[in-house]
Amino acid sequence: MITASKTYLDLVNDCDQFPYDDPLAGVAEHWSSIYCFFLPYDSRHHGLMLSSIVQKMPWTEEFQINHDARTVHLVPKDKSDLAESCTDALSKQVQACIDSEDCFHVIDRRHSEPYPIIGANFPVHLERYASTLFGIISRGAHLTAYTKTSEGMKIWVPRRSPKCFTYPNCLDTTVAGGISLEDPFECIVRESDEEASLSEDLVRKNAIACGCISYVGLNDARGGGEMGLISPDIMYIYDLELPIEVICHQNDDEVKDFTLMTIEEVKKGLAEGEFKKNSAIVMIDFFIRHGIITVENEPNYAEIVARIHRRLPLPTTASHYGVIDTV
Amino acid sequence: MITASKTYLDLVNDCDQFPYDDPLAGVAEHWSSIYCFFLPYDSRHHGLMLSSIVQKMPWTEEFQINHDARTVHLVPKDKSDLAESCTDALSKQVQACIDSEDCFHVIDRRHSEPYPIIGANFPVHLERYASTLFGIISRGAHLTAYTKTSEGMKIWVPRRSPKCFTYPNCLDTTVAGGISLEDPFECIVRESDEEASLSEDLVRKNAIACGCISYVGLNDARGGGEMGLISPDIMYIYDLELPIEVICHQNDDEVKDFTLMTIEEVKKGLAEGEFKKNSAIVMIDFFIRHGIITVENEPNYAEIVARIHRRLPLPTTASHYGVIDTV
Repeated sequence: MITASKTYLDLVNDCDQFPYDDPLAGVAEHWSSIYCFFLPYDSRHHGLMLSSIVQKMPWTEEFQINHDARTVHLVPKDKSDLAESCTDALSKQVQACIDSEDCFHVIDRRHSEPYPIIGANFPVHLERYASTLFGIISRGAHLTAYTKTSEGMKIWVPRRSPKCFTYPNCLDTTVAGGISLEDPFECIVRESDEEASLSEDLVRKNAIACGCISYVGLNDARGGGEMGLISPDIMYIYDLELPIEVICHQNDDEVKDFTLMTIEEVKKGLAEGEFKKNSAIVMIDFFIRHGIITVENEPNYAEIVARIHRRLPLPTTASHYGVIDTV
Repeated sequence: MITASKTYLDLVNDCDQFPYDDPLAGVAEHWSSIYCFFLPYDSRHHGLMLSSIVQKMPWTEEFQINHDARTVHLVPKDKSDLAESCTDALSKQVQACIDSEDCFHVIDRRHSEPYPIIGANFPVHLERYASTLFGIISRGAHLTAYTKTSEGMKIWVPRRSPKCFTYPNCLDTTVAGGISLEDPFECIVRESDEEASLSEDLVRKNAIACGCISYVGLNDARGGGEMGLISPDIMYIYDLELPIEVICHQNDDEVKDFTLMTIEEVKKGLAEGEFKKNSAIVMIDFFIRHGIITVENEPNYAEIVARIHRRLPLPTTASHYGVIDTV
């Protein structure tokens, strides 16, 4: 059997899938099928919705759809507390989806944990499963635990359980989790215990924040749910150097087992497409930051670095922080 | 005297100055004053030239200008060896600039070292001073030397000589240099000796490649030369942890002196705008990779990370490496 070997750029392309625009060619075709989602009193859009989703959505009364302008506006009846009334309106909208006969696959007739709309000017959240329907930025935290041995650096790599809903049996980063209303670092501390049996004390003292990765994915079969949903994502990245005697082992049913892999074994897993697709780019980023992938050994070095730090087509901070309003 | 304190985002804005496009608003005004520069047999443009430069340039016969399409095409007479004939044609063009009565300020009637056009499909180069006129990607290498002391991490920071043509008296990264035809790592090895008296052996063994920074600047007064030239730049980044007994000291006349600064002192230098502007974002990148700037203490975290890893509006690799052709 011949397995086509994936390059690092192939792995980036698998993840960062939403097309880039050519500013000299005018508005690209793909934008014409997208509706922008707006919060009240804010000229910046906070979500990118597919036309097919806007058509099918059982809209409730606090949402105004304009098919000519291709916009969806949340217009809450109660304007005294926007944080509360907008979160409420979004929650009712999810309930309407759950109650609908033809429910979206990503919602799966279930409620899920709240995800903040991170660029909003007031605290507002939407349920995790619904956030992809609205094309809102979702966030995760990823930790790579490694150890320096006499044979060189090794990385703790888990294999996902065959029972996982998404990416069963795939290789993954040491610890990873979606971020609900907590701080990214708190998420990593909690998940490190839950997924890899790493103590809170050890992680608080030794895990180092190393940046974030951003990309715009499009939902596919392995991710479950409707195809082609626009999925802007930010992953906050942590490194944790472990003493040789500390062992990662499974602590919940999401992980099958852990292996302390050599760099060559991780490279092989990447080339063979064994990693969960966003975890693959966390590994690539780790390799870039630790001098394993360099400009001298990777022809697409600058392209890869830029692509995994994509400026998202949505705001990531409240407008009063002085970010230039280009989207 | 009150000095306005610069935020990290202000420092990024000082460096990454070329506007971002809003794909929903059509072609932005600024593109209509730009000419694209093309190499033969390649549909991707490799430079972004200001209209005023195209008008003033004393064009030689191997360049074809189309004012309707706003394009400049290099069409070499000899098509048997494109690398040689294109490099030759660019060299003659620089000579024509030097010979012209009204010579460009950036060229300053002098030849300079060759800079490769990095995204080209064959090896071709243009002189450093002229590359900004053509709006071609230029490249540098930056090394941050640091040491772990009982008072925490400290960074070796040089002050530029008052005699420097650009950014006199400013603070800088430990070692930095423009990359001519050599590999980025070789550039850093050479410059580490020349600028900071760090031995080749020490740098080869201990310097670690940590990624690259990319942004699109616009030439201003402190950079010398014509204003508003489009300056896409890639900086390859290296970290070097030094034993406490190794001292950086000046070895050429570009550096006035070195100080081993605390993190707080570097932060103060950044806030007061004391750093050379692209060296400021090298420091910001270092702070992000070492857990000093985090998402919990910096509201513009994701925006800053994306902005200092901008996908340049020009190709960075030859087209046969499979990069999606969006520009």
